[in-house]
Amino acid sequence: MRNIKVIIEYDGTGFSGWQQQLNGRTVQEEVSKALKAITGKEVKVNGSGRTDSGVHAKGQVASFLFESSMATERIPLALNSLLPEDISIIEAHQVPLDFHARYSATGKQYYYQILHGCKRSPLLRNYSHHIPKALDVSLMKEASVLFMGTHDFKAFMSTGTSISDTVRTINKIDFYEDNNLLKVSFRGNGFLYNMVRIMVGTLIDIGLGRRTSAVITKALETGDRNQAGPTAPPHGLYLDKVFYPLTH
Amino acid sequence: MRNIKVIIEYDGTGFSGWQQQLNGRTVQEEVSKALKAITGKEVKVNGSGRTDSGVHAKGQVASFLFESSMATERIPLALNSLLPEDISIIEAHQVPLDFHARYSATGKQYYYQILHGCKRSPLLRNYSHHIPKALDVSLMKEASVLFMGTHDFKAFMSTGTSISDTVRTINKIDFYEDNNLLKVSFRGNGFLYNMVRIMVGTLIDIGLGRRTSAVITKALETGDRNQAGPTAPPHGLYLDKVFYPLTH
Repeated sequence: MRNIKVIIEYDGTGFSGWQQQLNGRTVQEEVSKALKAITGKEVKVNGSGRTDSGVHAKGQVASFLFESSMATERIPLALNSLLPEDISIIEAHQVPLDFHARYSATGKQYYYQILHGCKRSPLLRNYSHHIPKALDVSLMKEASVLFMGTHDFKAFMSTGTSISDTVRTINKIDFYEDNNLLKVSFRGNGFLYNMVRIMVGTLIDIGLGRRTSAVITKALETGDRNQAGPTAPPHGLYLDKVFYPLTH
Repeated sequence: MRNIKVIIEYDGTGFSGWQQQLNGRTVQEEVSKALKAITGKEVKVNGSGRTDSGVHAKGQVASFLFESSMATERIPLALNSLLPEDISIIEAHQVPLDFHARYSATGKQYYYQILHGCKRSPLLRNYSHHIPKALDVSLMKEASVLFMGTHDFKAFMSTGTSISDTVRTINKIDFYEDNNLLKVSFRGNGFLYNMVRIMVGTLIDIGLGRRTSAVITKALETGDRNQAGPTAPPHGLYLDKVFYPLTH
């Protein structure tokens, strides 16, 4: 019995998110099915966290107990031959038995892609959020600094979530610009439900001149969801990397 | 009555190519339908050339006679509001009445995207051709020089095509590498049916060590289709730009 950690890329367009559910195709279910085809047994696949319907992953991490004599380095090819085209196992590693993709994680990195300007792009329609006006990216960069560090991000969480500790630390935000395609990357020790999408929605409002950066300070201080901007749509979001202690 | 030139981007995944046909959804048909909704009349849309099913376009060009009082600069927005998400009109210009998207063209540029190495990418599955081995890109670059200039490209045309003049000039080939994603761009005065895909298929065989660059010289000399490599699949190909005299 080995504990296996896999890195997974998927195109979220055709999925009802990561987590197995009664209706809808999910990534977790597809990976479980492929593992059952190999081992003949039900395998519980633990993801580093859920992703919503339409959200993509370049580096989702999952772990599972694997009862098979297959060499670890053969697992990606074996699973990929059984998985649909919109999921791919990028790497597989044997890890200590106490490793858990979710509970062992020490941080995550997401990025969000925005196409701005009047021209929409058919080729990027499922992979970026189109804002049909030009964004003032320098205003957004300036405002994003306010997210850096340790704050109570309660205002940047979708309401209805029952979670007590809403304090998180963001230690890296980067902006990448390629013509009208803007990529904003966020690294932190953890993210609340919809936190990246609400931070991005707020930054977009600032880039459009609809809000000033003062709303970020106010939202962080008051915890009032109404101070923050709207939740940006899922199809611009990518789970990029999940971090673990060096020993894993 | 104005003659309008439009630049069109489309995701070829969901289309049976550019050209209207009895069965299957085509780009030409969608644009014609949108123009009919605006003008109330059947509008013949002339493309710079056909693209096959699955082939994408960043800069397809089409022209049509437009009977409407709508200002030219409003045409992209008006058409885009009627067109499906996988087609977008990027620009519209009024051009002289003798302009024809196909017959006035003086050259074209295509690019082809190849993802090489064992890791397939769900996010790029419809937008690049995956070669599950590492390509020797320097060998491919070296061989590609043999395509440069004016040659009889008969060997690089799908058989069954009835065309008498198979001499074409290629004046620019560029390679762009981003990790394992390779983009090869070809500019020329015109391209035969499947010519880019057969040139790419040949270069891939060379990059895999299956053929040497000598086959290109031999194929160009003999016109023998069997000397060239296989036709690379459509979903890696993009019609990037169409060139016209400066007066258009």
